[in-house]
Amino acid sequence: MKKLVAEFIGTCWLVLGGCGSAVLACNYPGAGIGFVGVSLAFGLTVVTIAYAFGHISGAHLNPAVSVGAWVAGRLETKDLGPYIVAQVLGGIAGAGILYLIATGNGSNIGNFATNGYDQLSPGKYSLLAAIVTEIVLTFIFLLVILGTTDDRAPKGFAGLAIGLCLTLIHLISIPVTNTSVNPARSTSQAVFVGGEAISQLWLFWAAPIAGAILAGLVYKYFFAEKN
Amino acid sequence: MKKLVAEFIGTCWLVLGGCGSAVLACNYPGAGIGFVGVSLAFGLTVVTIAYAFGHISGAHLNPAVSVGAWVAGRLETKDLGPYIVAQVLGGIAGAGILYLIATGNGSNIGNFATNGYDQLSPGKYSLLAAIVTEIVLTFIFLLVILGTTDDRAPKGFAGLAIGLCLTLIHLISIPVTNTSVNPARSTSQAVFVGGEAISQLWLFWAAPIAGAILAGLVYKYFFAEKN
Amino acid sequence: MKKLVAEFIGTCWLVLGGCGSAVLACNYPGAGIGFVGVSLAFGLTVVTIAYAFGHISGAHLNPAVSVGAWVAGRLETKDLGPYIVAQVLGGIAGAGILYLIATGNGSNIGNFATNGYDQLSPGKYSLLAAIVTEIVLTFIFLLVILGTTDDRAPKGFAGLAIGLCLTLIHLISIPVTNTSVNPARSTSQAVFVGGEAISQLWLFWAAPIAGAILAGLVYKYFFAEKN
Amino acid sequence: MKKLVAEFIGTCWLVLGGCGSAVLACNYPGAGIGFVGVSLAFGLTVVTIAYAFGHISGAHLNPAVSVGAWVAGRLETKDLGPYIVAQVLGGIAGAGILYLIATGNGSNIGNFATNGYDQLSPGKYSLLAAIVTEIVLTFIFLLVILGTTDDRAPKGFAGLAIGLCLTLIHLISIPVTNTSVNPARSTSQAVFVGGEAISQLWLFWAAPIAGAILAGLVYKYFFAEKN
Repeated sequence: MKKLVAEFIGTCWLVLGGCGSAVLACNYPGAGIGFVGVSLAFGLTVVTIAYAFGHISGAHLNPAVSVGAWVAGRLETKDLGPYIVAQVLGGIAGAGILYLIATGNGSNIGNFATNGYDQLSPGKYSLLAAIVTEIVLTFIFLLVILGTTDDRAPKGFAGLAIGLCLTLIHLISIPVTNTSVNPARSTSQAVFVGGEAISQLWLFWAAPIAGAILAGLVYKYFFAEKN
Repeated sequence: MKKLVAEFIGTCWLVLGGCGSAVLACNYPGAGIGFVGVSLAFGLTVVTIAYAFGHISGAHLNPAVSVGAWVAGRLETKDLGPYIVAQVLGGIAGAGILYLIATGNGSNIGNFATNGYDQLSPGKYSLLAAIVTEIVLTFIFLLVILGTTDDRAPKGFAGLAIGLCLTLIHLISIPVTNTSVNPARSTSQAVFVGGEAISQLWLFWAAPIAGAILAGLVYKYFFAEKN
Repeated sequence: MKKLVAEFIGTCWLVLGGCGSAVLACNYPGAGIGFVGVSLAFGLTVVTIAYAFGHISGAHLNPAVSVGAWVAGRLETKDLGPYIVAQVLGGIAGAGILYLIATGNGSNIGNFATNGYDQLSPGKYSLLAAIVTEIVLTFIFLLVILGTTDDRAPKGFAGLAIGLCLTLIHLISIPVTNTSVNPARSTSQAVFVGGEAISQLWLFWAAPIAGAILAGLVYKYFFAEKN
Repeated sequence: MKKLVAEFIGTCWLVLGGCGSAVLACNYPGAGIGFVGVSLAFGLTVVTIAYAFGHISGAHLNPAVSVGAWVAGRLETKDLGPYIVAQVLGGIAGAGILYLIATGNGSNIGNFATNGYDQLSPGKYSLLAAIVTEIVLTFIFLLVILGTTDDRAPKGFAGLAIGLCLTLIHLISIPVTNTSVNPARSTSQAVFVGGEAISQLWLFWAAPIAGAILAGLVYKYFFAEKN
């Protein structure tokens, strides 16, 4: 139970912090944080929760991470479903708090940092570009997660490397898909925006999870210590 | 005594560094640091003092942090009052030094990085949005502080995770309240600006402390090791 | 074999992450990441792979690093050739993925983050300035790599210091040569751009490797523990 | 001897990296790194050298740091003079390399990142503001250096905290004095610019060293373990 609350709070924080910085501060006139600030914010949600709750739940905060960890033999099968449910609910809670704040000056929520392709892509990138981007980036993200938490890696640095990997992923791909690599984060925003954001949501479940499964297999059968 | 001097100097540094970067460098024409730079500056005041004075006083630098630590059983009752006094006085000293520097080119101090809501909010956010923002962000801030300094967390990384959490909090919420989560920092700036900044100061004591108490209780009764 | 796959994937990530951030996000209207974001991205590719694969291959991701490590006695002679081949192929794979994504909104790839001097230098710097820049920066880069991975240095921090050194190198020199210090990264981009980018490629092999050899000798005969 | 070469190379890197980023990349049209990038660059020169050469020379890279360390009993008297000479010569070497690169596209060197007050202050701050800024910031810088390298502080993190402290100092004070807190860095730039930059140089020796001496005394007699 403690694990699921940690995943709930952590994913709530990921969405509130990452999407919150995008919605509230990215384009503030004259001093806005831009994509550098948003990338940093997403990464720091993971850094902070990894060190605060990593020893409780592993701080996945992302269904694709949980699936990849499960494929690699790092998460028990009985935990997979509950983790994903806690993450999605936590993400929606974070989006709800953000909705309350963001509309507190009379603004509407705009695109609310939703993920998308084609007309919903910030830079109007195609479905194919979006699929490749989300698969490849989640694949590397999971390799970094599995590698840095390997017993042979330097102790204690995983939270920093994993969080900064998420920052890096955003520095590359916000223009393409607004960066998901995390189905819970995509779902939470789409729920509040509705319409086409919902109809494109399948990609942000399918592609990150495909990349994560692939990474879990590659790590387990190729890089893991027993080999 | 050594502890109180450490808290005094540390909070002086937090205000001089964080608010100083905002007042002096945020909007410098052509190369200003923007909210990204200010967010980084606030966080780095905590990173630097955490590693320099953490072993002396715990490097709270913030009455809400001291209250949350006290609720969670991490600070002795006899230290709570003196810590808060040292922090407020340190903050005011930092603001005084900043006042001297900032007026050294003939400028007036403008809003002097004060916190506020409604007309004093950078993005004109309402009282409700400000309360929710300050309570929720301080709540997570304290969970991160209590979690990263837990005996089960990786050793040595707490100062980095806590400081970067303050950076993250600023990346989200400067547009809403100019970001407080720290009554000492709010008080020091309001003292120099006066007027409405003083009349809104209650919120930046009440909301951060409420969030901190809540986090202290949640951590103590739910996440702490003994449970 | 595991080592070579790690170098292949790592260098693929360096190019996809570093050049990808430059091509896709640097100049995005209104919120582009600029050279700060690109510098951060290059550095974080190294941070992430150093902690994920450092215990497998050493995470060189760069022929100049492998040459410098070999000169300093840190890499076996039999590994030098295969490492360089894996790095160049990995870089090209990264550039290929980036090509697919970058053209996915109908854009052409522009300069595709190629390195260059004179007319191909972002700031139109001369051949001499480019040579000095690439030799000196690679020289220091290798000293930092060899120093931070020395047995006497603090354990675990090398990946962070080395990655952030690459960030620093980019903060200085993107205007001069678009920053190489890495022949694999230069080759991968030149292959896709062709023309003059290919004809200038010799410099981005010769200068980084010269700087790396010099650093390897200085470290081995002057700074290493046995002396 | 090894120590002095390390200080020479390290201070060369501090000037080439910090001032180099300012001269070459700060104001690059459309993607310039601004004061955030310059602040990061200065700090990362220290982070990288601290982990690479910290175990050799202590990585002071700054006469004020050496004086403060000497006052606090951390540097032997016989080393103080040679350290300062090596730092000043290293700084000048770094400025020389930068001069060669910066003029490589036909530009003149402009203010070459010199420090100054009144008309030479970026934001036209007065002599008094400059003195207060340089004394106070160097005072805190030395407290952070002495605190983070204290035996009671977490092991290994000092290089990160000290380097990021220099980043923070720049985030605050570039508009005031272009940020010195380092007489070697001020001297190296003034030597190449000449004129009024030389005539103002006294302040950037006197104020940082005054702040450093004060911090050395405070740390030694108040915070050090024996007390």
